[in-house]
Amino acid sequence: MTAPLGTTASTATGGVATARGFRAAGISAGIKASGNPDLALIVSDVPATAAAVFTLNKAQAAPVVVSKEHLAKSGGVVRAIVVNSGCANACTGDAGMTAAREMAAETARLVGCAPDQVLVASTGVIGVGLPMDKVRSGLPHAFAALASTHGPQAARAIMTTDPFPKEASVTVTIGGKSVTIGGMAKGSGMIEPMMATMLGFVTTDAKVAQPVLHRALVEVVNDTFNAITVDGECSTNDTVMLLANGQSGVSVGDAEYAEFVRGLRAVCLELALGIVRGGEGATKLVTITVSGAASAADARKAAKAIANSPLVKTAIHGGDPNWGRLIAVAGRAGVGFELQRAKVTIGSIVLFEHGRPYDDRAPQAAEYLTGKDLAVAVDLGAGQATSTVWTCDLSAEYVKINAEYRT
Amino acid sequence: MTAPLGTTASTATGGVATARGFRAAGISAGIKASGNPDLALIVSDVPATAAAVFTLNKAQAAPVVVSKEHLAKSGGVVRAIVVNSGCANACTGDAGMTAAREMAAETARLVGCAPDQVLVASTGVIGVGLPMDKVRSGLPHAFAALASTHGPQAARAIMTTDPFPKEASVTVTIGGKSVTIGGMAKGSGMIEPMMATMLGFVTTDAKVAQPVLHRALVEVVNDTFNAITVDGECSTNDTVMLLANGQSGVSVGDAEYAEFVRGLRAVCLELALGIVRGGEGATKLVTITVSGAASAADARKAAKAIANSPLVKTAIHGGDPNWGRLIAVAGRAGVGFELQRAKVTIGSIVLFEHGRPYDDRAPQAAEYLTGKDLAVAVDLGAGQATSTVWTCDLSAEYVKINAEYRT
Repeated sequence: MTAPLGTTASTATGGVATARGFRAAGISAGIKASGNPDLALIVSDVPATAAAVFTLNKAQAAPVVVSKEHLAKSGGVVRAIVVNSGCANACTGDAGMTAAREMAAETARLVGCAPDQVLVASTGVIGVGLPMDKVRSGLPHAFAALASTHGPQAARAIMTTDPFPKEASVTVTIGGKSVTIGGMAKGSGMIEPMMATMLGFVTTDAKVAQPVLHRALVEVVNDTFNAITVDGECSTNDTVMLLANGQSGVSVGDAEYAEFVRGLRAVCLELALGIVRGGEGATKLVTITVSGAASAADARKAAKAIANSPLVKTAIHGGDPNWGRLIAVAGRAGVGFELQRAKVTIGSIVLFEHGRPYDDRAPQAAEYLTGKDLAVAVDLGAGQATSTVWTCDLSAEYVKINAEYRT
Repeated sequence: MTAPLGTTASTATGGVATARGFRAAGISAGIKASGNPDLALIVSDVPATAAAVFTLNKAQAAPVVVSKEHLAKSGGVVRAIVVNSGCANACTGDAGMTAAREMAAETARLVGCAPDQVLVASTGVIGVGLPMDKVRSGLPHAFAALASTHGPQAARAIMTTDPFPKEASVTVTIGGKSVTIGGMAKGSGMIEPMMATMLGFVTTDAKVAQPVLHRALVEVVNDTFNAITVDGECSTNDTVMLLANGQSGVSVGDAEYAEFVRGLRAVCLELALGIVRGGEGATKLVTITVSGAASAADARKAAKAIANSPLVKTAIHGGDPNWGRLIAVAGRAGVGFELQRAKVTIGSIVLFEHGRPYDDRAPQAAEYLTGKDLAVAVDLGAGQATSTVWTCDLSAEYVKINAEYRT
């Protein structure tokens, strides 16, 4: 339960430029006052099929609106993705839309493609206008720095409060040939995807038709990026983009779909878990499994309620095997729940079952909770459906980071 | 907006035993290891009409189940309420049910009434069995200590992590005669009522028929106890009970209903706001008003989402006028929302309107946020409905309290 990657393809150290025919760059354009890297570029040598999922937040940032437009106009054929950190370009009115379009157009000019073959993404403080002068002067430097070995630089350039960059890649064998899938992502607050989360960029050298690529992305995102939460917040900029440029010479059709999805899932899950591990103030990764639910929707709803409960998250932070809080959240989650048939397990230790506690096992559970990679399971006693989500603990450091974010 | 009591009857210093014909006591029975008061008793000199609302949590504590039974069996005519802190008697199986019944029976024996004329309530850690030996030996002392001046002692005896006791009373004039309504409540974590919240006990010397009393309580609780949140958690024990013993000689019928509700609302609102002010780790009381909603349900849903957002609560804690987080939460709240028509106001300072920020006003808003009693308003731009809820900020102290609650 604690090694979710065990059942999927194994991941290697690689990132968004590991698949054949992709190059990346990450540079400092001066958007961040700190001087840290803040501009990332991903370019495919040839036109790539693109799929993307975006935030369901009704306050959508300018880059989300522009990327949707470009995907529609280009028919899902894309050459580049340009991303900045240090500014979300959200709630910035007409000026923000103009800036997002110009960011794409400048990139297109350098890459030599149509503007609508460039997707854009931004992350940072909401309501701050994009400093286009800095983006404009930075872009040629990013373009010049493009290399298939520069995935790590790109992964650093998209970070905000992330404590570490998040990259993953996998190679799967399809029809005797190898296909690489690699990606990068950033968190690490305002994290509860309602479709995708935060920013995630995945590339593959498989050849995948756009509808198939989209179907695979939606399917995988649901159990990876959409199954994590740091603080129950869905941002204005959440985006996951997937490019497939076919440079491996391997086509993914119905016969190859399952294997491709297995690889894509491994990459997305590793990136998603990286976001949780690097959640603001996080000290522990917690795998929450809800079983015995009346429906899959109930299972997910209860699991999310537990994963977002400040009382559960603080108890785990404090190493307190407080199963009562798990029961209380399950009971108020608005899903089918039968107290007499419910069950709470921390690690492999059952603390509540048959309507009564087993408090003699609490010391053993407290010992288990001193670990960094924890599993908590709640059976609702109301059916057969199951869901797993991942979250982190809630620490005083989270409060500190978010009370001081802009100051 | 910051003085919600201004529009209702004024409250005086009084509590649960201020209305004529009520006495209360609060003593230390040894349930809490600290030796702090932990057993409260409220007795009406004559049989009183009773109304109560209980948690909607599906994991209902034994005292909730027993009080519901007793209300049904007694036809809503009650003599006493007995309450313990230090133990929630929730998820305690058959033993917990037996203990809750015995607690009522022992009280009934002392008061001289039928067991089902006694209501019970408990608060504390979930899953801990009620030490009936301590309750049994403590009850005669509580009975002996009953006095109309001992409301403050009762209010202290129901506290858990509450930093201060919460009492309120009001005297309203109905038909030229005075009616007193007084009560007490406790918080202060696991606070987001789904019907009532935590424990609240209100008494009045008005004479009110049970159906009218119930209607008044439900109506008032919706805009008071149900409109507050500390951490979005609904407990297993939430209970608000209201006793009316008629000792003022004033009957409340249709003609007097509005005035009675006005007084009841003043008492319940003061108690509810006391719970928020005394929320775990709270340093600020925040009044959140959502307007421009497509429906009342949407308005409440958005207001609750904002009130429970850790990013909003930490920003307010840090004095950061981060209107972008308010927009982001409104946008993901699952309600009608139009970014171009939305508006964010902190205090009286408009920070976002007409689709764009007014960041030159941020310093002024930051200055306002140094206060302790704050108002935040979001217009969703999607209709005419409005809702107000109250919450507190999220501090590192909340994490500390809840990471160490049982240790």
